[in-house]
Amino acid sequence: MRRFVIVGHKVDTSGDFKLDDLAGSTGRLDILLRCINSAFFLSHGIRKDVEVYLILQGEPNPPVTVRISGEEIRYLNPDERSTGALIRNALLKVEGDEIRSSPGIYVSKQSFADVISDLASKSEIVYLKEDGEDLRHKQFDDDVTFVLSDHQDLTPEEEAILLKHMPSIVNLGPLSYHADHCIIIMNVDLDRKM
Amino acid sequence: MRRFVIVGHKVDTSGDFKLDDLAGSTGRLDILLRCINSAFFLSHGIRKDVEVYLILQGEPNPPVTVRISGEEIRYLNPDERSTGALIRNALLKVEGDEIRSSPGIYVSKQSFADVISDLASKSEIVYLKEDGEDLRHKQFDDDVTFVLSDHQDLTPEEEAILLKHMPSIVNLGPLSYHADHCIIIMNVDLDRKM
Repeated sequence: MRRFVIVGHKVDTSGDFKLDDLAGSTGRLDILLRCINSAFFLSHGIRKDVEVYLILQGEPNPPVTVRISGEEIRYLNPDERSTGALIRNALLKVEGDEIRSSPGIYVSKQSFADVISDLASKSEIVYLKEDGEDLRHKQFDDDVTFVLSDHQDLTPEEEAILLKHMPSIVNLGPLSYHADHCIIIMNVDLDRKM
Repeated sequence: MRRFVIVGHKVDTSGDFKLDDLAGSTGRLDILLRCINSAFFLSHGIRKDVEVYLILQGEPNPPVTVRISGEEIRYLNPDERSTGALIRNALLKVEGDEIRSSPGIYVSKQSFADVISDLASKSEIVYLKEDGEDLRHKQFDDDVTFVLSDHQDLTPEEEAILLKHMPSIVNLGPLSYHADHCIIIMNVDLDRKM
C-alpha cells in the first residue's frame, strides 16, 4: 500500500465554503484537491493500492482527518471542483470517531499525531527534505507512507511528532516542488520499482 | 527552452462557457488547465524557461492556438478556475495572426501543423509512446518540445504530421499517465539533467 499524508494548515474545517472560490475562501483546500488527483489517477483508472489522509488544521473545528481509499472510492473525477464537493460533504458530517461520508471517503477528528502513530505501526514513514537520500536510489517497503505539507512547511510541533517515528528522509530532485507534483514524482518512481 | 504542445481535441473554441463547469461544458479544457499548472509551477515561482502551446480543435472555431510564455506570464495561479478565466479571455479575442490576450498569453488561428512545423525548425521534437526510449536514459537538446494529447490519442492525421518531423520517441514509465502528470515527469527529469 502507498499512503500519502498531506497537512492543510489553514483549511476551513466547517464545510461552509463555496465551490466557486476553492483557492480563495477555503484556506487553500485547492492544494489538497490537486494532491488527491495526483495520488489516484492513472490514464485508464484509479490506483487501488493508494490511500490518502488529509489532515485539516484550520478553524473552526480542527483537527479533521479525511481518509480516502483508492480501493473503495467512487464518484472521483480529476477536476478540483467535483473533488471539492466530496470533501465538503465529508466536513459537514464529521463527529469524532471515523465515519463514512461517501464510498471510499471517511472523516474523523483524528489529529496528525494520531494518524502518524497509527501508520508508523504498519508502514515505513517517509519525510521529504532537501538533504535526504535521493529518491531514485532508495528502496521502499511494500507499505510506505509519504508525509507532505501544503504551501506551508510542517510546524516544529508536527516535525517533532514525525521525527519521533524515525522516518526515512528522502529528496525528490534538485528543485522544490508543489505537494501535488511531489506525489506524481513518488508514484512514478514507485511504479518503476514494482 | 522547454516547450509543451498539448492538443485538446474537443475543447470549445467559442470562449462561451462557464467557469463553474470546466470539466463538463468545455470539451475538457480542465485537462489543459492542469497541464498549464504542471508546466509552470515550482514551489517558489514560475518556470521562466517553459513555453506551452494549447492546440484547441473543438467547435465552433477550430483551430485555435494559445501560447503561454513562462518568461512573460502574469496573473497565473495554480487553481483550475483562475487559469480557465485567462484562457477564456484569450478565446474571446482570437482573430487570425497571433495577438496578445494578457501578459504572457497569446492567441492565434495557427493549426497543429503550423505549430509543429515552426517548432521543428528550432527545437528537438519529442513524441511520447509506450515503445519509446526510456526517458531516464535519453539526453535532450537544450531546446526541446514535448507533444502531448488530452484524454484522446493524437488522430492519425496529427500523428502523421508529427512523424514527418522525425521526432524522438520517448517512454515515461511502466504505466500510462494523464497529460498533466506526464509534464511533471518530464520537467523533473530535465531538472535532474540540467
